Amino acid sequence: MPYMSTVFQAAMEAGVSIRSECGGKGACGKCKVIIRDSKVVNEVTELERKHLSRQEIDSGYRLACQTRILGNVTVMIPLESRLVTRKFQLGGLERHVELKPAVRKFHVKLPKPTLSDAEPDLERLLEALSQQIPNAGELEISYEILRNLPKILRDADWSVTVTVWDDRNIIAIEPGDTLSVLFGFAVDVGTSKIVGHLVNLRTGETVSVGAIENPQLIHGEDIITRLTFAITDETRLRTLQKLAIDGINKVIREACANARVNSSNVYEVVAVGNTAMHHFLLAIQPKYLSLSPFTPAVKKQVSVATKNLNIGVNQGGILTFLPLIAGFVGADAVADVLATGIHESDELSLLVDVGTNAEVLIGNSRDILSCSCPSGPAFEGAHIKYGMKATSGAIEKVQINSHYEVHYETIGNTKPTGICGSAMIDIVAELFKRAVIDNHGRFNPCIETRRLKENNGEKEFIIAWKDETTTGREITVTQKDISEIILAKAAIYAGASILMRRINVEAKDLNKVFIAGAFGNYINLGNAKLIGLIPDVPTQKVTLAGNAAISGAKMALISKEARKAADILSKKTRYLELTTDPLFNAEFVHAMFIPHKDLSRFPSVKGI
Amino acid sequence: MPYMSTVFQAAMEAGVSIRSECGGKGACGKCKVIIRDSKVVNEVTELERKHLSRQEIDSGYRLACQTRILGNVTVMIPLESRLVTRKFQLGGLERHVELKPAVRKFHVKLPKPTLSDAEPDLERLLEALSQQIPNAGELEISYEILRNLPKILRDADWSVTVTVWDDRNIIAIEPGDTLSVLFGFAVDVGTSKIVGHLVNLRTGETVSVGAIENPQLIHGEDIITRLTFAITDETRLRTLQKLAIDGINKVIREACANARVNSSNVYEVVAVGNTAMHHFLLAIQPKYLSLSPFTPAVKKQVSVATKNLNIGVNQGGILTFLPLIAGFVGADAVADVLATGIHESDELSLLVDVGTNAEVLIGNSRDILSCSCPSGPAFEGAHIKYGMKATSGAIEKVQINSHYEVHYETIGNTKPTGICGSAMIDIVAELFKRAVIDNHGRFNPCIETRRLKENNGEKEFIIAWKDETTTGREITVTQKDISEIILAKAAIYAGASILMRRINVEAKDLNKVFIAGAFGNYINLGNAKLIGLIPDVPTQKVTLAGNAAISGAKMALISKEARKAADILSKKTRYLELTTDPLFNAEFVHAMFIPHKDLSRFPSVKGI
Repeated sequence: MPYMSTVFQAAMEAGVSIRSECGGKGACGKCKVIIRDSKVVNEVTELERKHLSRQEIDSGYRLACQTRILGNVTVMIPLESRLVTRKFQLGGLERHVELKPAVRKFHVKLPKPTLSDAEPDLERLLEALSQQIPNAGELEISYEILRNLPKILRDADWSVTVTVWDDRNIIAIEPGDTLSVLFGFAVDVGTSKIVGHLVNLRTGETVSVGAIENPQLIHGEDIITRLTFAITDETRLRTLQKLAIDGINKVIREACANARVNSSNVYEVVAVGNTAMHHFLLAIQPKYLSLSPFTPAVKKQVSVATKNLNIGVNQGGILTFLPLIAGFVGADAVADVLATGIHESDELSLLVDVGTNAEVLIGNSRDILSCSCPSGPAFEGAHIKYGMKATSGAIEKVQINSHYEVHYETIGNTKPTGICGSAMIDIVAELFKRAVIDNHGRFNPCIETRRLKENNGEKEFIIAWKDETTTGREITVTQKDISEIILAKAAIYAGASILMRRINVEAKDLNKVFIAGAFGNYINLGNAKLIGLIPDVPTQKVTLAGNAAISGAKMALISKEARKAADILSKKTRYLELTTDPLFNAEFVHAMFIPHKDLSRFPSVKGI
Repeated sequence: MPYMSTVFQAAMEAGVSIRSECGGKGACGKCKVIIRDSKVVNEVTELERKHLSRQEIDSGYRLACQTRILGNVTVMIPLESRLVTRKFQLGGLERHVELKPAVRKFHVKLPKPTLSDAEPDLERLLEALSQQIPNAGELEISYEILRNLPKILRDADWSVTVTVWDDRNIIAIEPGDTLSVLFGFAVDVGTSKIVGHLVNLRTGETVSVGAIENPQLIHGEDIITRLTFAITDETRLRTLQKLAIDGINKVIREACANARVNSSNVYEVVAVGNTAMHHFLLAIQPKYLSLSPFTPAVKKQVSVATKNLNIGVNQGGILTFLPLIAGFVGADAVADVLATGIHESDELSLLVDVGTNAEVLIGNSRDILSCSCPSGPAFEGAHIKYGMKATSGAIEKVQINSHYEVHYETIGNTKPTGICGSAMIDIVAELFKRAVIDNHGRFNPCIETRRLKENNGEKEFIIAWKDETTTGREITVTQKDISEIILAKAAIYAGASILMRRINVEAKDLNKVFIAGAFGNYINLGNAKLIGLIPDVPTQKVTLAGNAAISGAKMALISKEARKAADILSKKTRYLELTTDPLFNAEFVHAMFIPHKDLSRFPSVKGI
């Protein structure tokens, strides 16, 4: 039988995005589509029967990745399987830095050459620049610009604006005086989303922002799925690279269009992201990130000509990826530190960045310790039956009263489609408060409410009734969903706890706790503490830092000093490999209680 | 009428080289071909009648550049119109320099990463290198190598050899210990020829040489013709670039094959050449070299990745073009100075490099002055009726006895085809000694010999009789030929004289005179002085430096100190524009006598 492409593949090729966490392997069950004519596709497979209810199968539901096309087929993609625009956390905590970007412009007027002054073009230019740049004689010029220098200078009648990068390279020469247009772009290449800020480098001001789902999502929602996809061959790595670059280019175009800025006046892009995103974007062999001891190819700052990456900014532009810390603590964590200023304070701070993965850092101006927590992407809606990202239609806040009645709010105030991470925290906290679940997260069988029911032998709690939802089906939270959230929060808390133990401090010693990440600003801090996601500190010590990574990237874009600080951070921040830490197992197991096995760690929760 | 390509163009496209000085404009008359079937080509043009004798036309001779192809045509290219292998001056005066090349290799064994030492690959490599290179931490790695670093290191089981360029860039990483194979290539990109030396950079020894006609010759033998061709559009400039690179690659292949060296073990190419060759090779807009004030785009050393130029050496290789002095004094002159050591001596030296053009330099360790002489390529056989380059069949030495009988020697001891530059010096000197010409170079009508005859109203002297030659035609020297040689030598002498006058010295103050250039080692010094080509100094003060340019290039390849000296030379050597110098006209006119109008300048010749 000849090989037939699947609905998932065909959609991908046609540029239509279907939701998937596993990248099309039949593992996640999230790529549900509806096919009315069963004769033009293969029969329902065993694998699909695991993910689809009988009712769904009867209604024509299939998994796109398991459905092979045998003829002309019409496919409906239900709302729940679509990748739609999310409620992106576009910005974060910002700190002032002195304006001193790596790209600078200089306008010079050169004397025309004569027989008595026939100094060559480049030397003439450097001589003129030397009045504004002390080391002008040592500037390097790109070969491409040198080739055209005679024409550029004469076409401009010897009046040009020179763009210098890092006091080292001449990256652009433009006719006339273009000092007034000098822009840079900061971009956070997240596993799920790409967020970019267009910055006026003359003022340091953000002039517009843009964001997009990371187009790599079609190859899996989590890092490991994408790593598994990419490491087999160079072509696949290049595919992921191209998707990331396409995404970045879209964000740049969007931000530039909104601010009416010509993208050719963007001279530097400062990127942050986790280590895998770093390797994918730069098409650096990522194989060894997925194998112990999880070694990156490089951690120091990498600068590459944007031309080599096909990034749509100035022809001579530079992309600088901020330095990393380790295989699972990336440039986004470095940027988080920059944005929160942990490294500049004498007092102790804890930082938790919850994204598709979670990183935790603790420290002050003397020392910083970091780790990556195997939290999984549950807080992003993955592995949760009705989980979804914080897009329109997601339930984002939940309250449950003493009669077990549920009050929820959705993003966009629409009918609900599913539940996002912040609401999952609320649900677990509220169910615990109402004793619907015990401190292991197990449903209490004695609770009497028609919201608690059993489905295929598994207990679940109904958050939204059939007639309330967009899909016409109930939205529930299952026993497994609660376990996923507890596993995730336990991993994060265990990470924080081990870091604290390694430097011999307790929750009371923490001066500040920063919660960064896409869902950061939407969570209920009381509930986060109640379920034991973060150590028990007074709420006024907790700062929601939002997308601190993009803030840190912007600081490095605006300020060479911040960039230098990032380099130092990358070198001095210690990395602790949690999975092999002898304390980890016990810490993890104890954190799998709500809020914790050792209630003395959560005095403020104790009363509930 | 549709456009028909010419025989010249068709030959070029087919990769067949036909001699041409004017690049196919019908100006030089050197692209003679024989076409037996006149029906498949256009009729003989007026222009061709000027260059071809009636007898030639009757025999089917045509100019390839004026002959348009109308059908299938068979073309014979007579020997005289072929570009054949020349008697290249492959080497020159060499001076010892300390072995300290810009490319260096370091073999390192890295500890394998473990969970307790998960330092990234690049940092691990730099750390290991830091035991051999103090500034290892600051080395830059090319993006292409970084991308593959994880694979390279693991495939090599953590034992690699790193090639570092200029203490700045990691340009190659090879598995295992490859310290024993480290080569560099020095290349002199001459207007007429490309000469290359393959050098073992572990020992500084030249292991083989290669040479080829400059393939750009099909677009004109002289620089101005090629400049005129190149400046109209980028495509043509790229054509010249590609031809130069093809030539360099052939020379590299030849030299590597002879020495059984793998060209991927060549890590740096150091190139020299005049300013036009520099711009052509690097595809830098050369338009302004041909317009006053003849300004180059750059004079300082340019280093470009060989990959960007498609030069067939190591993938990470670097091509370094030595610095220039001015629009018409190029890197070859800088290399001449390096090779002769003028800049290191306290005593005064004069250097004359006679190639397709002539450069003259005078100076010592304190100061050097340079100029370019509008000598034209007469010494290379151009503009001389039976002139040819120093290839097989060229008359290279001539003696004429008191009975006006001619004794000549040819290159390769074959029958003569034409006359090359060294023989032209001999002929003018001998004819003058025998009073066949006067001190203006005019034939003496009173001399009785059947060798002196008139042809179309112009006097000529027969050097070889019909039955002695390969062409079956006499080889003669015409009144115009003698004038061309006198013009050429007058330009060179005038240049030297003006330089001497500008620093207030006379011939007696010269400690050394170097004659460099392709024909250098074959000329009769006595005759050169007799015709007034060089100032009248004792012969023991004259050194034939041969291809000093390639020697200087090799020094810069072997020694970073020599390269630094070249940079300083480029900056400090003053350039004198002869054509606008108020002394030039008088000096030129006075030098148009044999040996000079002012005989007191040539005391040793006075007696003859």
